[in-house]
Amino acid sequence: MGSNPTCATEAPGNGPAVSRREFDALFDAVRTWGRWTAADRGAWNRVTADHVRRATATVRSGTAVPMGRPWDTRPGPDNARPALHYMSELGDVEAPEPAVYKDFLAADYHGKGVSHLDALSHVAYRGRLYDGRAAGEVVDAAGARFGAVSALGPLVTRGVLVDLPAVLGIDWLEPGRAVHARDLVAAEKALGVTIGDGDAVLLRSGAYRRRRELGPWDPGEASAGWHVDALPLLAERAIALLGGDGDSDVRPSPVEGLHSPVHALAVTAMGVPLLDNLDLEPLSAACADAGRYAFMVVVTPLNVPGGTGSPVNPVAVL
Amino acid sequence: MGSNPTCATEAPGNGPAVSRREFDALFDAVRTWGRWTAADRGAWNRVTADHVRRATATVRSGTAVPMGRPWDTRPGPDNARPALHYMSELGDVEAPEPAVYKDFLAADYHGKGVSHLDALSHVAYRGRLYDGRAAGEVVDAAGARFGAVSALGPLVTRGVLVDLPAVLGIDWLEPGRAVHARDLVAAEKALGVTIGDGDAVLLRSGAYRRRRELGPWDPGEASAGWHVDALPLLAERAIALLGGDGDSDVRPSPVEGLHSPVHALAVTAMGVPLLDNLDLEPLSAACADAGRYAFMVVVTPLNVPGGTGSPVNPVAVL
Amino acid sequence: MGSNPTCATEAPGNGPAVSRREFDALFDAVRTWGRWTAADRGAWNRVTADHVRRATATVRSGTAVPMGRPWDTRPGPDNARPALHYMSELGDVEAPEPAVYKDFLAADYHGKGVSHLDALSHVAYRGRLYDGRAAGEVVDAAGARFGAVSALGPLVTRGVLVDLPAVLGIDWLEPGRAVHARDLVAAEKALGVTIGDGDAVLLRSGAYRRRRELGPWDPGEASAGWHVDALPLLAERAIALLGGDGDSDVRPSPVEGLHSPVHALAVTAMGVPLLDNLDLEPLSAACADAGRYAFMVVVTPLNVPGGTGSPVNPVAVL
Amino acid sequence: MGSNPTCATEAPGNGPAVSRREFDALFDAVRTWGRWTAADRGAWNRVTADHVRRATATVRSGTAVPMGRPWDTRPGPDNARPALHYMSELGDVEAPEPAVYKDFLAADYHGKGVSHLDALSHVAYRGRLYDGRAAGEVVDAAGARFGAVSALGPLVTRGVLVDLPAVLGIDWLEPGRAVHARDLVAAEKALGVTIGDGDAVLLRSGAYRRRRELGPWDPGEASAGWHVDALPLLAERAIALLGGDGDSDVRPSPVEGLHSPVHALAVTAMGVPLLDNLDLEPLSAACADAGRYAFMVVVTPLNVPGGTGSPVNPVAVL
Repeated sequence: MGSNPTCATEAPGNGPAVSRREFDALFDAVRTWGRWTAADRGAWNRVTADHVRRATATVRSGTAVPMGRPWDTRPGPDNARPALHYMSELGDVEAPEPAVYKDFLAADYHGKGVSHLDALSHVAYRGRLYDGRAAGEVVDAAGARFGAVSALGPLVTRGVLVDLPAVLGIDWLEPGRAVHARDLVAAEKALGVTIGDGDAVLLRSGAYRRRRELGPWDPGEASAGWHVDALPLLAERAIALLGGDGDSDVRPSPVEGLHSPVHALAVTAMGVPLLDNLDLEPLSAACADAGRYAFMVVVTPLNVPGGTGSPVNPVAVL
Repeated sequence: MGSNPTCATEAPGNGPAVSRREFDALFDAVRTWGRWTAADRGAWNRVTADHVRRATATVRSGTAVPMGRPWDTRPGPDNARPALHYMSELGDVEAPEPAVYKDFLAADYHGKGVSHLDALSHVAYRGRLYDGRAAGEVVDAAGARFGAVSALGPLVTRGVLVDLPAVLGIDWLEPGRAVHARDLVAAEKALGVTIGDGDAVLLRSGAYRRRRELGPWDPGEASAGWHVDALPLLAERAIALLGGDGDSDVRPSPVEGLHSPVHALAVTAMGVPLLDNLDLEPLSAACADAGRYAFMVVVTPLNVPGGTGSPVNPVAVL
Repeated sequence: MGSNPTCATEAPGNGPAVSRREFDALFDAVRTWGRWTAADRGAWNRVTADHVRRATATVRSGTAVPMGRPWDTRPGPDNARPALHYMSELGDVEAPEPAVYKDFLAADYHGKGVSHLDALSHVAYRGRLYDGRAAGEVVDAAGARFGAVSALGPLVTRGVLVDLPAVLGIDWLEPGRAVHARDLVAAEKALGVTIGDGDAVLLRSGAYRRRRELGPWDPGEASAGWHVDALPLLAERAIALLGGDGDSDVRPSPVEGLHSPVHALAVTAMGVPLLDNLDLEPLSAACADAGRYAFMVVVTPLNVPGGTGSPVNPVAVL
Repeated sequence: MGSNPTCATEAPGNGPAVSRREFDALFDAVRTWGRWTAADRGAWNRVTADHVRRATATVRSGTAVPMGRPWDTRPGPDNARPALHYMSELGDVEAPEPAVYKDFLAADYHGKGVSHLDALSHVAYRGRLYDGRAAGEVVDAAGARFGAVSALGPLVTRGVLVDLPAVLGIDWLEPGRAVHARDLVAAEKALGVTIGDGDAVLLRSGAYRRRRELGPWDPGEASAGWHVDALPLLAERAIALLGGDGDSDVRPSPVEGLHSPVHALAVTAMGVPLLDNLDLEPLSAACADAGRYAFMVVVTPLNVPGGTGSPVNPVAVL
C-alpha cells in the first residue's frame, strides 16, 4: 500500500484554487434539497433497516474501537474553547451511605478540540440551511427548529476507513494537503473496499498521531482534508456520513471567499452530517490488523432538542 | 402477559425491609472484587468479542431505537440541576461564508433528569469503590483516578428489556413498587427471554410514560425499581450492565440507613455500571411489535478522563 | 408613618389599565434619546463628579449595608435558571504548599433569582434600544455593541430607599400591588427625603421578607412594583438608577400587550439601568435605625464587554 | 520620583532566597489567629465605621476609577481557564414587547485572567486555613463553611496605590522583580502617603501596561510582586486588603518549596484577603493627575455562600 496515488514530485498542496462560481456550480450539482420527507435527517434517510442489518453483518471479530478524543479542559492552538469538567459531589464522610461522586461537564464543542457530530442546522450557505430552509427563520437563541441533532437520532451503518497514510506508506498527511477524488479511488483499490450508499466515510489523515508526536497546531490555519473536487464522487456514492480526524475541510480553503467549503457542500447541499476531530489511530491499527477497512459504525448523539450537533464517542465494530 | 407474578392482593410496596447486617451479607455475596485485571471496567470485562458478535447476531429487522430522554433545561421535581443549552454562534450575515451555528452544552448529569451512565467511580460503600479501592485516595477535585468513565469505553452487547408493565398488563409500575427476583423470573418466562452473562438488563417501569401522562414527581421520594433481593439473581446471571427508566433503586429505600442500596450492590460490589433515566417507551413498543425482548444494545459514553459517568443516548437495534 | 397614602378602602391592585397608545405617549414623554454623547451610559451621565462628592457627604455613621441576595443554586418558582457553583480545586494533600481552594461560578442572571444590574442593551421596544439604536444591528450572539455593561462602569451616587411598607406600617406590599406617583410623593414626605437628579431610587416592597416568611412564588405572575404612571415623575426627578427587591415592574402588567412596561420606559426610553432582585431588608432596618433614607450607594458591575448586565452586590453606606 | 530606592547596580531579582524554616518563623510572626470574633472576615474586622467615614473623607474630586480587567473569553498564557459569555436570549421579533437580551456568564475565576478577590477559604498552609481552621474539615465539594466570601461582605475603606513604576520613573517592573519593605517605605515617601490600619494596599507593577504593549506571558513563571520580607511591615501597618495588577506574589517564588508564599502569609496567617489581576493603569493616571495616592476604595464581592472568592470590579474614588 506504499504507492503514492498522487504521483506528485513535490509536496501536494491545498489546490487547485476554485472560484466562487465554480463552487456554486458544485453546490447545485450535489444538492439533494427536497428529496426527503424527514428533511432534518438528510442523508441519514439513506440508512434503511436493510443498511443496518448489512452493517451488523460486517462484524467479524467483534472488536469494538472507540473514536472519541479525550475531553480536553486545557486550552491550546486547537482548543480555543476548552471543555469544562468539575466535580460537583465528592462523597463526604458524614453523608449517608452510599457515598456518591458526581461531576459537571460542559463544552462549546464545535471547533477543533472535541470529537463531535455536526447536525444539519450547523451550516448555512447564502442564508440557507439544508433543504433550502432560511437559517434566519429557523435558528435563534433558543436553538434550531430545523436540522436539530435531536432529529437525527442514532446512526448504525457500515463505516469505511479511508486510511490514506496507510495507503501512502507514511505516518500522516501534512497539514494543508488536499485529498481528491483520485485519492479516494486509489484508497478504495488499495484497501479493498468500495464505498456505497448509506456508508459512513471516515478519512484518516493521521492528524491525531502527528499531534501526539509533534504537538498541537492550529488546524484552522493548516489541515489535511477533502478538496471540494472530491465531493461529487462522495455524492454519487450516496454516503450518509462524512467524518475524520480533522474536520473534513482542507485548510487553507482553496475556494474563493469560503472558509469551510466542504462543510457547505456536505452539510448544506448534501444533508450529510459531519463527524469532526476523531482519534482514528486505534481504528487504523485495528483495520490493519484485521486486513479490513469496512465495519459497523454506531454514532449516538445526545438527544438535544434544538441542538446544532453533539459531542460524541462513536464506535467502530470490526 | 397479564398475570400478576407477585400475586399480591394489595398494592405491592418497597419492602421487605432489610437490615444493615443483611445488606452487608448481600454485598459480600455478590462482590467480584479482585476478579478482573482491568478492574476499572468491572463487569464490562464479561463482554468479550464473542459477546459482541452474538449481540450483532440478535439483530433481525434492523430497527434502531434510541433511549435517551431529551436534554432538559427546565427545572422540575425530577430535574433539580437543569441542563444548560446556549447558542454560542448564530451565523452573522456579515460573516464570511458559510455561516455557522454553534452551541454550548452543560450538565451536572447525575440525578433524575438526564439519561446517563454511572461509571465505577460514582458510588462508594464504607469508603470503598469497586475492587476495594479507597475512594478518598483515588477521587478528588481533579476527578477519579480509578473507575473513570474513560476506562469503560463503548459497550456493544445483548440487551434484554424487562418490560414489567407489559408482563403485568398495566401502564406502569406505581412509584414505590419494588421489583424482585420472582418478578424477573416471571418476566423472562412471559417475554420469552433468558438473561445471560454479559447482558445489558433494562428494566422498564413505565415511569417516563407516567411522567408524560401525570406530570413529573420527585423520584428520590418514590420510584419503582429493584429491591436488593433481586441482585443475587442478577449477579448469578453475570450481567454486564443494569439500566432502566428510573435509576434502578426502588425508593423509599427498604434498606436501613442506605439511600441507594442497589447502586452500592451493582456499582460498588459487582462492578456493574448503571444506565439511569432512560426513555424506554419507544423500545417497549418496538419489542412488542417485534415480539422479541432481546436485541443489540450500544452505549458510547463520552471519553472523559476522570469522569464519574457520562450523559448518553444509548441505542437498541432489533 | 402608618397612614396609607393611597386611602383605598379595598386592596390596591395593579391598575389602572393602560392602552398601548397611552403607553406609547408615555414612552415619548420620558424619552431622552440623543441627549448624551456617551449614549451607552444613559442616565448615568447625570452622575457627575459633583454628585459623587455629594454622595460621599451623605455618609454619617459609616455603616455599610450590602444588598445582594445569596447566590442560589436551587431551582424554585422564582429561580428558573439556578446559578451554578462548583469547587474546581480542593487543595490536594500531595500538592505543593500552600494548598488552594478554587471555585467556578456561573449564572444566566437575568430573571428573578439573582441580584443584578440591567444594562441598556437588555431591553428593546419596537426594535429599538435606548437612544434609538436598532437592536437587531447591535446585539447578536457575540454580545451587545451598544449599551454593554462594560460601558457603564461603576456607579457612586446618592441612594434613596423608598421603603413603602415602612411608610404604610405593614410588613410588605402584596404581590400585584402597583406603586404610583402619589405613593412616591407620600413616601418622600413620610421618610423626609426628596429624590433629586442623579439619585439611585430603590423601592422596597418587602418581597424578600415575604419570601422568607411565606416561601417563594413566581414573581412573573404577581409582584409589587411601579405602575407606569409613576415614571413621568421619576423622569422629572432625573434619576440615574432604579432598583428594588423586585424587578421594578408591577405584575400582572397593567399595559396592553407588554410584559414589562417599566423596563421599556426606564431602560429603553429614559436610559435608566435597573437593579433587580435585591435583598433590601438589612437596608430597611439600617435606615429605620438611622432615621435617614438617603445614603451613598455604590454599584460595581463586572467589566463584561458586550454584556447585557451583571450580577452585583451593591452596597449602601449610611 | 525617579530615584531608584533599591540602589541596585544590576536588575533586581526575586531574591533573597528564603528557607522553609525562615518562612515558618515569618508566618508565626505575622499571624493574627484568634484575634477576631468574626474570624471569617479576618483583617476586614479592622475596618470600623470610623474607617469607612474617614475613607469617604478622602474623596476630593469625585472621580470614580474602576479596576476590573475585561471579562476575557479567549485562552492565553495568562488565561488558562477562559471565562464564558453566551447570549441566552436575543429578543425574537415574534416575542411580546419589550424584547429582551440576556446572557450567561461563567468563570473559574482564580488564576491570572480574571480580576477577583480571594476570600479566607482560598489558601491553606500546613492544612490550616486562617484562624487555624482545619481546611479538610471546613471545605468540601459543597464549598467552604469557614472563610467564605459571603462572610466578607462589601469593603469600603481607604486605598493606597503603591505605584512603584511611577516612583522609579519606569514603565513597569520587569516580571520576576521582588518588591521589598524598603521599596514600600521609599514609595510612601515619594508618593506622600503613609499606609495605616484598615487600608487597602494596591501594588502597581505596570504588568497590565506591559501586557498591552508586549503581549501576555505566563505570570506563574515570572511576575513582579511582594517578597515575603515585606509582609512584616504590612502586618505592622495593620492593613485590611492587599491587591495589585499581579497576584501579590513575586514569581519565581523565593521561598523553598512554596509556590505562593505571600498568599500564605497574607490570607492564611494575617487574614488579609487579596485582590488579584487588576488593571491599575487608569488609577495610576488618575492619581498622577490628582497628585494624591490615597482615595476611597469599594470592593463588593458577589454574595456566594461557600465561595472561596469572587470576580470583582473594584472602584477607587478620588
